[in-house]
Amino acid sequence: MSSAKGGIVRTLRFKFRNTPETSDKLTKAIGQAGVEIGKVSIVHKGKHYTVNDIEISLADEDALKKLIEWVSALKEVTIVRVMDDVLKLHQNGKIKMVGTVPIDSISDLRRVYTPGVADVCKLIQAHPEWKDHYTSIPYSIAIVTDGTAILGLGNIGAAAGMPVMEGKSALMYQFVGVKGIPILLDTTDTEEVIATIKHIAPTFGAIHMEDFASPRCFDIEGRLEKELDIPVMQDDQQGTAVVVIAGLINACKLTGVKLEKAKIGMVGLGAAGLIIGEFILRFTGNPTLGTARTEASIQRHVARGGIASNFDEIMQKADIVICTSGVRGLIKPEMIRKGQIIFALTNPFPEIMPEQAIAAGAAIATDGRTVNNLVGYPGIWRGTLDAKAKKINWAMYRAAILAIAGVTKEGELIPSPLDPKVHLAVTKSVARAAMESGMAQRHLDEDYFEDTELRFPLDM
Amino acid sequence: MSSAKGGIVRTLRFKFRNTPETSDKLTKAIGQAGVEIGKVSIVHKGKHYTVNDIEISLADEDALKKLIEWVSALKEVTIVRVMDDVLKLHQNGKIKMVGTVPIDSISDLRRVYTPGVADVCKLIQAHPEWKDHYTSIPYSIAIVTDGTAILGLGNIGAAAGMPVMEGKSALMYQFVGVKGIPILLDTTDTEEVIATIKHIAPTFGAIHMEDFASPRCFDIEGRLEKELDIPVMQDDQQGTAVVVIAGLINACKLTGVKLEKAKIGMVGLGAAGLIIGEFILRFTGNPTLGTARTEASIQRHVARGGIASNFDEIMQKADIVICTSGVRGLIKPEMIRKGQIIFALTNPFPEIMPEQAIAAGAAIATDGRTVNNLVGYPGIWRGTLDAKAKKINWAMYRAAILAIAGVTKEGELIPSPLDPKVHLAVTKSVARAAMESGMAQRHLDEDYFEDTELRFPLDM
Repeated sequence: MSSAKGGIVRTLRFKFRNTPETSDKLTKAIGQAGVEIGKVSIVHKGKHYTVNDIEISLADEDALKKLIEWVSALKEVTIVRVMDDVLKLHQNGKIKMVGTVPIDSISDLRRVYTPGVADVCKLIQAHPEWKDHYTSIPYSIAIVTDGTAILGLGNIGAAAGMPVMEGKSALMYQFVGVKGIPILLDTTDTEEVIATIKHIAPTFGAIHMEDFASPRCFDIEGRLEKELDIPVMQDDQQGTAVVVIAGLINACKLTGVKLEKAKIGMVGLGAAGLIIGEFILRFTGNPTLGTARTEASIQRHVARGGIASNFDEIMQKADIVICTSGVRGLIKPEMIRKGQIIFALTNPFPEIMPEQAIAAGAAIATDGRTVNNLVGYPGIWRGTLDAKAKKINWAMYRAAILAIAGVTKEGELIPSPLDPKVHLAVTKSVARAAMESGMAQRHLDEDYFEDTELRFPLDM
Repeated sequence: MSSAKGGIVRTLRFKFRNTPETSDKLTKAIGQAGVEIGKVSIVHKGKHYTVNDIEISLADEDALKKLIEWVSALKEVTIVRVMDDVLKLHQNGKIKMVGTVPIDSISDLRRVYTPGVADVCKLIQAHPEWKDHYTSIPYSIAIVTDGTAILGLGNIGAAAGMPVMEGKSALMYQFVGVKGIPILLDTTDTEEVIATIKHIAPTFGAIHMEDFASPRCFDIEGRLEKELDIPVMQDDQQGTAVVVIAGLINACKLTGVKLEKAKIGMVGLGAAGLIIGEFILRFTGNPTLGTARTEASIQRHVARGGIASNFDEIMQKADIVICTSGVRGLIKPEMIRKGQIIFALTNPFPEIMPEQAIAAGAAIATDGRTVNNLVGYPGIWRGTLDAKAKKINWAMYRAAILAIAGVTKEGELIPSPLDPKVHLAVTKSVARAAMESGMAQRHLDEDYFEDTELRFPLDM
């Protein structure tokens, strides 16, 4: 249902006792409020209570408040919840952990559970590497956060970040068949974070760090990479950098700008910005200008081969401006230089809306909805796990960048994450790079690389 | 396929290059070995390689060894894996984490992922209790182990215990719709275990401890229960005790023995034994005789109201003997006293096989395959989470005992875990006990208790 008058649409969940009068009173109350009623769905019809979700179209939030007042006057009816489209989708979360083998009989039970399962346990005890064949460990990834930098929202806490972690998990399975397990931490202490992740690491084939604030995230990621024998990636660092550079390659193709020679400015040098700068330097040999809120951030950029700069200089001189500042609306239209390429990546609200930037003269402008990690991390992980790489090295990240740029449609910056070809290409490219750079611990055969579908690698 | 001559059945996974000669050579080699070929399934047929699973019936392990030698002589063929029925089911593990909402379009993506998801995050930040509505946290349970007491196999390590944890998880979802997340710890240090579980606790609605060795498990469980505001249960302690007492109630009904007055002996006072003794005392007022390998265990039993005893005394005097010793075949048939009730619960191999005990004169004898936690923990958890109880108190455990005993069919000790009525009954009873004992933080209405299906409670 769309609102005819440009108003708002909400779904209200009502609960009331099963008496005909109550239902009538409710309908009347909603009718009196002069709102448009859409879809009505019965959530629960029990012996004593009925719960209905009623979609309602209203002029604005004030009209909604009034409606709630009118209905609340009815003692018999409770408004359980008021939901918009997004909230409706998020009810009870977005992921579930289910079994993969049918368990319909006692003999099934005795095979997947006691006593049968004991044989599998003993085999793994005798041959620890067989956990790769007979458990879900190698294709399970911890999606860990301490909640300190959820999207561009800042330190809102790990539980408030759960909807993001669940989204990552749902998409990880949908795109590449990998099990993403959200892990929310109650500590932001660097040593405690590291110790905790290490203590639960046997559960997982890899650690996907998500939305840790900088600069702590660099220490944590570096230490974990050294101290664990499974791969570690922070999606906001390496995952983002891979996708941004793929987008830059395409932006340069569209505009004729040369990435190796362009003046590139980084606005914001947090988890994402710092690594984007580092990866651009590695990929092109071209150091970036960088500015950030703190001098310490700028010094980290310089330590990684970047050039210290400031916001004004970047806006005035850079051919390409990459923003990960976390500041909504930081760039005013009048700051845009004609022909600039603008990546305004802060989520959910960018430094400048792409339409505004284009109107102000930018050759290309985009935001975090388009330049989205979703085309990167699923395939990076799947390829890394297929190859059983202990770490993700630069050759593998580089392969992911080229794969994403390579499958992008003519005229676009980034491919659609809903195109399965993207994840297949990234997976295979990363796995091949792992093999060719000596990082793979599993031999993948020709069929693996030529197959047009993802499948579990058949060990040799 | 069953083996005609009482031999063994194995599935061999062969991989070979796609040449007609190779396939022929393989068939010939298997034929020469004089084994019976069953089902052949193509696992992979690529451009270069074929992988087949071939079910083979052989006389014994020696015949298998010979077959492997013959086939290994063919350079073109590799035997990737040799699997029995149980291993086949365990390939790549038994659980997966999947999404619950369709994500088929860019507009879906923008609702479940950025930018839509940001609204949900901000709402939870503003109203932390809303994580109960809009994330999967409240119905996620950590199934944590340190691998120190996996089944009756002992300290085989957490990764080797993963098949058990995955089984628990798969069944938790299948029986009561709750998400069980295995967590394998790399430490067995009490303080580190406690700290780690506390640091990841925001992810979960409850902590299910599994297969921690005693006596450490008592400290860990006690501390976690005190220091966390979500419920904690060790399945080998309280979970087992609930099911054992339900079984005892039924055994007494069948034999006319009075549980309140019977002499009850506990052989083994580890995680399970100690709490079974404690729960029997709480349930009946009747203290149990207890013996164990260490004096410390016996003293713990005495501290919880039990009576110190020894193995001989128990076998000679007890009407009911409950064994959780971890020692296969501890009880010889000649030790059985006529009319005794024997619960020989060590998994996967009991202290005495039930048939043997019956033949030796026991009135009733059973083992851990029958007296299985599976009828307990799923409903205990679901009822606890539905009621939003911060802890599981004795009233709730007692309710679970009575519910399990109550739904057992005439003449049996324990209901089948595959009967959904069991889990429904346990869930509702535990939730009701939580409400009546003041432990519930959520009001559950009449419909909740009268519904004949499990559903998410509709908050009020």
